Amino acid sequence: MLLPHFVRRTHATHVASVAKRLPFHSQRAFHVSAVLRLLDMEKVNTSERLAELRKLMKEHQIDVYMVPSEDSHQSEYIAPCDARREYISGFSGSAGYAVITYDKAALSTDGRYFNQAEKQLDSNWELLKQGLQDVPTIQEWTADQVAGGKVVGVDPAVVTAGDARKLTDKIKKKGGEYKAVSENLVDLVWGKERPPRPSEKVIVQPLQYSGKSFEDKIADIRKELEKRKSLGFVASMLDEIAWLYNLRGSDIPYNPVFFSYAVVTPTEATLYVDESKLTSEAKEHLGDKVTIKPYDAIFNDLTALSAEAFETNGETTEKKKFLTSNRASWALNKALGGEERVDEVRSPIGDAKAVKNEVELEGMRKCHIRDGAALSEYFAWLEDQLINKNATLDEVDAADKLESIRAKHDLFMGLSFDTISSTGANAAVIHYKPEKGLCSVIDPKAIYLCDSGGQYQDGTTDTTRTLHFGEPTEIEKTAYTLVLKGNIALERVKFPKGTTGFALDALARQFLWAEGLDYRHGTGHGVGSFLNVHEGPIGIGTRVQYSEVSLAVGNVVSDEPGYYEDGKFGIRIENMIMVKEVETKHKFGEKPYLGFERVTMTPHCRKLVDTSLLTEDEKAFINEYHQEVFDKTSKFFENDPLTMAWLKRETAPY
Amino acid sequence: MLLPHFVRRTHATHVASVAKRLPFHSQRAFHVSAVLRLLDMEKVNTSERLAELRKLMKEHQIDVYMVPSEDSHQSEYIAPCDARREYISGFSGSAGYAVITYDKAALSTDGRYFNQAEKQLDSNWELLKQGLQDVPTIQEWTADQVAGGKVVGVDPAVVTAGDARKLTDKIKKKGGEYKAVSENLVDLVWGKERPPRPSEKVIVQPLQYSGKSFEDKIADIRKELEKRKSLGFVASMLDEIAWLYNLRGSDIPYNPVFFSYAVVTPTEATLYVDESKLTSEAKEHLGDKVTIKPYDAIFNDLTALSAEAFETNGETTEKKKFLTSNRASWALNKALGGEERVDEVRSPIGDAKAVKNEVELEGMRKCHIRDGAALSEYFAWLEDQLINKNATLDEVDAADKLESIRAKHDLFMGLSFDTISSTGANAAVIHYKPEKGLCSVIDPKAIYLCDSGGQYQDGTTDTTRTLHFGEPTEIEKTAYTLVLKGNIALERVKFPKGTTGFALDALARQFLWAEGLDYRHGTGHGVGSFLNVHEGPIGIGTRVQYSEVSLAVGNVVSDEPGYYEDGKFGIRIENMIMVKEVETKHKFGEKPYLGFERVTMTPHCRKLVDTSLLTEDEKAFINEYHQEVFDKTSKFFENDPLTMAWLKRETAPY
Repeated sequence: MLLPHFVRRTHATHVASVAKRLPFHSQRAFHVSAVLRLLDMEKVNTSERLAELRKLMKEHQIDVYMVPSEDSHQSEYIAPCDARREYISGFSGSAGYAVITYDKAALSTDGRYFNQAEKQLDSNWELLKQGLQDVPTIQEWTADQVAGGKVVGVDPAVVTAGDARKLTDKIKKKGGEYKAVSENLVDLVWGKERPPRPSEKVIVQPLQYSGKSFEDKIADIRKELEKRKSLGFVASMLDEIAWLYNLRGSDIPYNPVFFSYAVVTPTEATLYVDESKLTSEAKEHLGDKVTIKPYDAIFNDLTALSAEAFETNGETTEKKKFLTSNRASWALNKALGGEERVDEVRSPIGDAKAVKNEVELEGMRKCHIRDGAALSEYFAWLEDQLINKNATLDEVDAADKLESIRAKHDLFMGLSFDTISSTGANAAVIHYKPEKGLCSVIDPKAIYLCDSGGQYQDGTTDTTRTLHFGEPTEIEKTAYTLVLKGNIALERVKFPKGTTGFALDALARQFLWAEGLDYRHGTGHGVGSFLNVHEGPIGIGTRVQYSEVSLAVGNVVSDEPGYYEDGKFGIRIENMIMVKEVETKHKFGEKPYLGFERVTMTPHCRKLVDTSLLTEDEKAFINEYHQEVFDKTSKFFENDPLTMAWLKRETAPY
Repeated sequence: MLLPHFVRRTHATHVASVAKRLPFHSQRAFHVSAVLRLLDMEKVNTSERLAELRKLMKEHQIDVYMVPSEDSHQSEYIAPCDARREYISGFSGSAGYAVITYDKAALSTDGRYFNQAEKQLDSNWELLKQGLQDVPTIQEWTADQVAGGKVVGVDPAVVTAGDARKLTDKIKKKGGEYKAVSENLVDLVWGKERPPRPSEKVIVQPLQYSGKSFEDKIADIRKELEKRKSLGFVASMLDEIAWLYNLRGSDIPYNPVFFSYAVVTPTEATLYVDESKLTSEAKEHLGDKVTIKPYDAIFNDLTALSAEAFETNGETTEKKKFLTSNRASWALNKALGGEERVDEVRSPIGDAKAVKNEVELEGMRKCHIRDGAALSEYFAWLEDQLINKNATLDEVDAADKLESIRAKHDLFMGLSFDTISSTGANAAVIHYKPEKGLCSVIDPKAIYLCDSGGQYQDGTTDTTRTLHFGEPTEIEKTAYTLVLKGNIALERVKFPKGTTGFALDALARQFLWAEGLDYRHGTGHGVGSFLNVHEGPIGIGTRVQYSEVSLAVGNVVSDEPGYYEDGKFGIRIENMIMVKEVETKHKFGEKPYLGFERVTMTPHCRKLVDTSLLTEDEKAFINEYHQEVFDKTSKFFENDPLTMAWLKRETAPY
């Protein structure tokens, strides 16, 4: 699945910081109401909410109030209780930023949502269409409101320390002040109607799947602390905390995480979580090696910890500091005592988590065999329904069927993201999400793109296949084959240790480029191990970070080039690949050479391949892959002649 | 020719800032003495020099004095009068940094120079071998000397403002102080023996070669100033000033530049240069549109200019600033009033200069035809000498012959860098520079690598060809062919506008990588138009800057993959290529698609190609190129049967 902030916006690189989150719709009830709202694009009357908010702003001596989309952990998906921007503005899209003054209210969003925002915002709101010429960013718009010493407030828990610093400067330059207001004013307006913070059970991710005890992980972090001469690391990203303690939750849809913070110092390991969420098994698992404290206690605790550390530490010439992720909130940073006491870094837990151990890699292989079998069964079923049974199926019906097939498999825990099930022109909408009642009926004569994944206890999957059940056009076949060639080129490449994902990106694009084609998103993202389907710090693409972190043995990334013709069709081919050491004839500089193992186990679409565009090497590579897919997944279809026939046909050698 | 700071050092990325300059040996006399010194690696007795320096340090209340290798313009090559680090330490290598305390003296350099430094440094000096484990960088070593309030001094003209800021922090953290001392203390010690600053004539680069009047260039800079709301741009890089005013000099070897500064404000254009250097033609050319002031007047003038600007400018809320290049010196930055008044940016002149106009591109094409003819004549001559005449030729004899052939051609102004003429194992030394008396005799049974270029009034050339006059080994042929495939892959690629040179780098390496081979340098650098053979900001490789600046129509870059086996042989194939718009079947997103035109006009080495490794497309591409080489250069050999026969043989189709 594409990273949401993966899409290149031609005129709008400055939008990235505000438009970087995907939809959430965290629980079923919430989901349904959002869908109903979408159906008629119902406007919420925000007059009363805004009036109450402005009263609170006055009480807090604030002239402007900023409401970003993020939660306190900079999560990609958020829980309903954190949907403050949606509550205050009425706009339910995934990307947006609201700012309220005494007489104005502005919401900024990007091109994907202009239409929806226009329908959902009531007359209280001004829409800032990001990416259009002369439209200010929300930060610029805000800075324009502050002349003469106005005060801009924000909940410091929902912005990063870095973003807060930038905005502080911007607002100061215009003569205003940026101020942290620790009570979230939207929450106060929302009051009792606000959904409670999820309190789903937290379970153990056993050693047979995690491959490394939390004690060993903590020991590694402590080595890192020693190396960096640091007082301790404060973890705030939910997937990092789940990984560290080998625990999993379900507070946020698709991401098996739970609301928490963690602190590791040279002597202490603490988990901030509501203790009632922990199963007895989880409590036992942590034992006396981890101190459990309430979720909300983190801020006071950090302040005390910092005061104590700097009392004993203040006299040395080389001051040690605390470490936080560079995505940690301003609130955390302030609690620790600010810049003087904190180094904001690329998280050492994130770095460690990206390098999967042998057990995790084996889990990835195994769950991809089950998941690949599920996909093949689904594709065979879909073809049979559409072609032989002339069934009428809409995109959501189909996605639901796929989920039910996945659910039959061992260790299935849920989907890893909303299935993108899209027919014809919908496939060209990169972040398309079919909604019941709004979505299209699948056209058996058009391209069908399916981007989906599952959470299994032994790993996380994410696969895209583009199919055609009828007669594809020439351009569809050409584009598919060029995308496939790029996908293969990346999977076949060998490269010396030290190479980054930035450097490999062009390999996946070169064949499209040669024909003047391209795709406006990255080529690959990191994937968690029964964790978030999107994880850093590595990836394949032209993000700055991808040029800073080398690919390493044990990394798991997606390989998903595509091609999209607006209003016509879309193609994407996505495999999960794992970095491994490879044999090469020579070994220049005694450096290890690396390459990829592909673990996704479902065939490419035969009908869409123009074999005349493939080299013999490419054909051999595909044949070998298809043979592997057949060998590893056909056992599932011994009593399923339909799928077996489909699989045999699709994996037959070229 | 390889960028000097192009070489990847496995364990020593932190060395880059100190090890980024190439040898200079600016004038013949200086050059010869350096060679004599090298021959017996004579030690200079630095006791007296150091004693005098320490006296001056005391007078200036300085405990530590830093002597970097750079001149005041961060030039790649420096004039003899700027070789302060060599003078004070006795070490003549290109890369190094000297630091002197009252009782210690340290010199740091990288692996290329350990041997030479050990031989040249006398007992006063401690050698810091950069890249070896536990060896501090010169900055770390310096910071370790300052506990208890020691003062570190430096001439602020020879360090960049950015480097000064970093070092200020580092030294402050350790309890010391970093202080600018505007008199260069080494110059004071050097006294009368110090060579004078070169005062070569400054001539006009006429419109027929520059393609754009300096008035138009100034107008463009002013537009840029307006766009950036800036008070003025202070140019400090010598090639930028030469380009801006369409002037050329010869103060620095190989680089047709002259010592100067320039200031462009919305109303004034000033050139700081010793007026006596300007030919009457140059004075007339500048007329009354440019104010000429003495070279040394820049600092006082900037202080006055800044004072005046901020007097009139200080009251607006959004303060305008001056712009300097991010490579401008600390001295310039201080003269303007420091960070508060200066934005350090990627130079807008550098950006403009990198995009050649049609006249410059045509000049590049033309001079590469003459230069290619010179190379073919040379290679034919060399083969004949070695094989038919059994001549004994050393690497310098051969290089001299090449220079004399180039010199016969129209518009030849000199070499664009020291010719790398290297036989056998010497070809594996990436920055090899043959010295008469030290160099090897060319072995007709070994690989010969020649990296050379000329300055012509209509352009600058830079070509590497690797030849074999006997029977190459299998690995030599394989490696050559893999390098050639990479060279071709880059030249053939088509890519959408917006793509960077970072993204294309892997294309040139992919075939080597597949066999476990690689090269430890970048793939390409920008090239000037009758200017420096190395220029920014674009290039092909994994430097951060190459990921920040997109390639644009009119850029001229080298394409020079290679492969080196220490102690055995080296291969590099370098063509100059120019970015142009290309036709593609489709045009996704209505973006222009770009590609390369290659302008280097001398054949690849037939003997070293293993055709079994080439695809039909690659063979066709080479055949087409060789046909073009023949068509464009054979006219030079109508009365030269030797070269004509050689050219016919080497360009015959595969």
